[in-house]
Amino acid sequence: MKCEIIAVGTELLLGNILNTNAKYLSEKLAELGLEVYYQTVVGDNLQRVSEAFKKGVERSDVVIATGGLGPTDDDLTKDGLCQALGISMLLHEPTLTKIESFFKSIDRIMPECNKRQAYIPVGSIILENNNGTAPGILLEVNGKISVLLPGPPSELIPMFENSVYPFFKARTNSILKSKMIRIVGVGESAVQEQLREIFDNQSNPTIAPYAKSGEVHLRITAKAETIETADKMLYELEDKVRDIIGNNVYGCDNESLEDVVIGLLQNSNKTISLAESCTGGLISQRLTNVSGASKCFMNGIVTYSNEAKQRFLRVKEDTLLQHGAVSSETAYEMAEGIKRVSGTDIGLAITGIAGPTGGTAEKPVGLCYIGLAYNDKVETFKLMFAGNREKIRWNASIKALDIVRRILI
Amino acid sequence: MKCEIIAVGTELLLGNILNTNAKYLSEKLAELGLEVYYQTVVGDNLQRVSEAFKKGVERSDVVIATGGLGPTDDDLTKDGLCQALGISMLLHEPTLTKIESFFKSIDRIMPECNKRQAYIPVGSIILENNNGTAPGILLEVNGKISVLLPGPPSELIPMFENSVYPFFKARTNSILKSKMIRIVGVGESAVQEQLREIFDNQSNPTIAPYAKSGEVHLRITAKAETIETADKMLYELEDKVRDIIGNNVYGCDNESLEDVVIGLLQNSNKTISLAESCTGGLISQRLTNVSGASKCFMNGIVTYSNEAKQRFLRVKEDTLLQHGAVSSETAYEMAEGIKRVSGTDIGLAITGIAGPTGGTAEKPVGLCYIGLAYNDKVETFKLMFAGNREKIRWNASIKALDIVRRILI
Repeated sequence: MKCEIIAVGTELLLGNILNTNAKYLSEKLAELGLEVYYQTVVGDNLQRVSEAFKKGVERSDVVIATGGLGPTDDDLTKDGLCQALGISMLLHEPTLTKIESFFKSIDRIMPECNKRQAYIPVGSIILENNNGTAPGILLEVNGKISVLLPGPPSELIPMFENSVYPFFKARTNSILKSKMIRIVGVGESAVQEQLREIFDNQSNPTIAPYAKSGEVHLRITAKAETIETADKMLYELEDKVRDIIGNNVYGCDNESLEDVVIGLLQNSNKTISLAESCTGGLISQRLTNVSGASKCFMNGIVTYSNEAKQRFLRVKEDTLLQHGAVSSETAYEMAEGIKRVSGTDIGLAITGIAGPTGGTAEKPVGLCYIGLAYNDKVETFKLMFAGNREKIRWNASIKALDIVRRILI
Repeated sequence: MKCEIIAVGTELLLGNILNTNAKYLSEKLAELGLEVYYQTVVGDNLQRVSEAFKKGVERSDVVIATGGLGPTDDDLTKDGLCQALGISMLLHEPTLTKIESFFKSIDRIMPECNKRQAYIPVGSIILENNNGTAPGILLEVNGKISVLLPGPPSELIPMFENSVYPFFKARTNSILKSKMIRIVGVGESAVQEQLREIFDNQSNPTIAPYAKSGEVHLRITAKAETIETADKMLYELEDKVRDIIGNNVYGCDNESLEDVVIGLLQNSNKTISLAESCTGGLISQRLTNVSGASKCFMNGIVTYSNEAKQRFLRVKEDTLLQHGAVSSETAYEMAEGIKRVSGTDIGLAITGIAGPTGGTAEKPVGLCYIGLAYNDKVETFKLMFAGNREKIRWNASIKALDIVRRILI
């Protein structure tokens, strides 16, 4: 089936935002074996939106549009589709009730204009939106399928995964199955060199590397007639990759590093506490974003100031004076201190210089020390990270989580 | 002048890469006062590339294409343009010489296929490429301008800045300037209702709302002959908006809520400490992501367990037993406790149920209490947030930061 994607939004045409939805949808449609021939962006203009749909249903089998489903007057995607197809809209009472109860649940009165979102093109299947008020639309007219999805990725992605992906999955007969192998602790080019033979001789399954900030992901994709055959092909290739890359492979698909760490803690019945300086709560936040983290994550302390390091972690004044807040000695005492005050099995501490200011020749921006207290032992690690403040903090959080992962496996 | 952007490349249609070129060009063209009506992506296919150009020169004054200028057989952009316009290509000797000497300079022999890059549509202006072998093309036929730029941003950006920007700058006499007004504490539809008169009567400047997760951004754009006039027009409209929206306007352009809060703390010489339960370090992380936060952010404690709430914040066991960890009473004692143990001017606390599990009929997922200790007073706020775990945590962090912002202004 030929597909095309239409993104509606003047902010895209003004270059205010990147069209990440088009990339996401293209990737997913490729996975489903659907061929995307065009991506188009049009502004919030009824005539142009309508023309784009007209062209789309003329030359493609499937048109997927994003954006313009909001409650305001410049949200025109549904109107554009209806104009292109010559159909009308009706107020859909259950949708209206759902929107009203959404506002009720957050203790607010529904503004009048939100009623617009309950008008639905005649004959549509309504796609549920659990993360916002705009329902999605799936409409089949003369064998051509149009799908309307909300613009915010936090609404679009779950809606696509829950409703649209299964819809098309059921209609295709050769399937493409992908698996993402997630790697940490080694760079993209090193991964590629280690796997050169596999890369050079690939055909089906295919393998492609993606550098993600601080990690490397390998997407392996098999084309087969049944899920079982595809799974077997993927399993065999994954096995070969794991043989070569070893423990640097930490997980698969949507499993994040924090998911894996929480899982390992739960399985081994261990608890953890955190003392963060340069990462400012980022590692705590990542771990507690995993549902069920409360069973093994006891507490985290963001000790940004020297005073807080002394008060909450009992880091010695002498240590801070002699070696500084960013030192192996301070990381050692922070890890030991947080483990003791929290009464956990593991105490993880990090101190460093995230920049952009605060660096010196001796202790440059990007220098971090990680301390790990575990089994009556404290280990420290000295690390250097490159990039801006956000990147340094992010990469430091990856390294810290990875250190915990490696002692638990 | 009406413009459109055509990006050529199958890798875009497969979702392998983001179309950052379209964003870059759109932003620059807006700056030049040129209106971008469409962005299109087509694959490496002669017929579809040619059709895209045909449509482009028919409906727009300027067509800017990116990608497909390489030396290989699937680089078809020039061919597509020539087919669309009915013109031919000629070997351009100086360009060939330049490509040959490029290869000489890196001690390699020019592969035969690179000769393709020296073929130029008849009548073109050649745009120099100092960062690769593909020259750019600028061609004016019947008053319609076509520009072909290489795909790699490292080649495209300097070529655009050195050759294309000045070309259009010399031809336009009006400029477009935008400003983003950032709003928190009120939804998109409510903003639009409050500003209905401005929205309904807009012409120049224009105004458009964008719902960002938990915030609303208004983009106002003025068209004028000089920067000064545009600035004045924007200033006047911003003033009107602020008159109506009031303190819900928290900032402009790239200023984030955490930037504003840190700025207010610094200006008023106040310090803050945080006790986070359901947000798990997210608020600390957001505040410490602002460079210079260390002057006012003292420390944060992620007290996930009841035990940690008692140990670090001195929340009474009785309070936890009688009212539960997610209660106004606990939020009160957490805020008071963190302020006291940290010795800061402000103590901010949050406790809630981020889900997906842990909710009850009485205390559903999404329920949060925020406590604020300030000036010998403690205030608590009861809130309900909708969405998944990540969304609840994010929106709770916005609300908490906004509460601090409002007591400081």
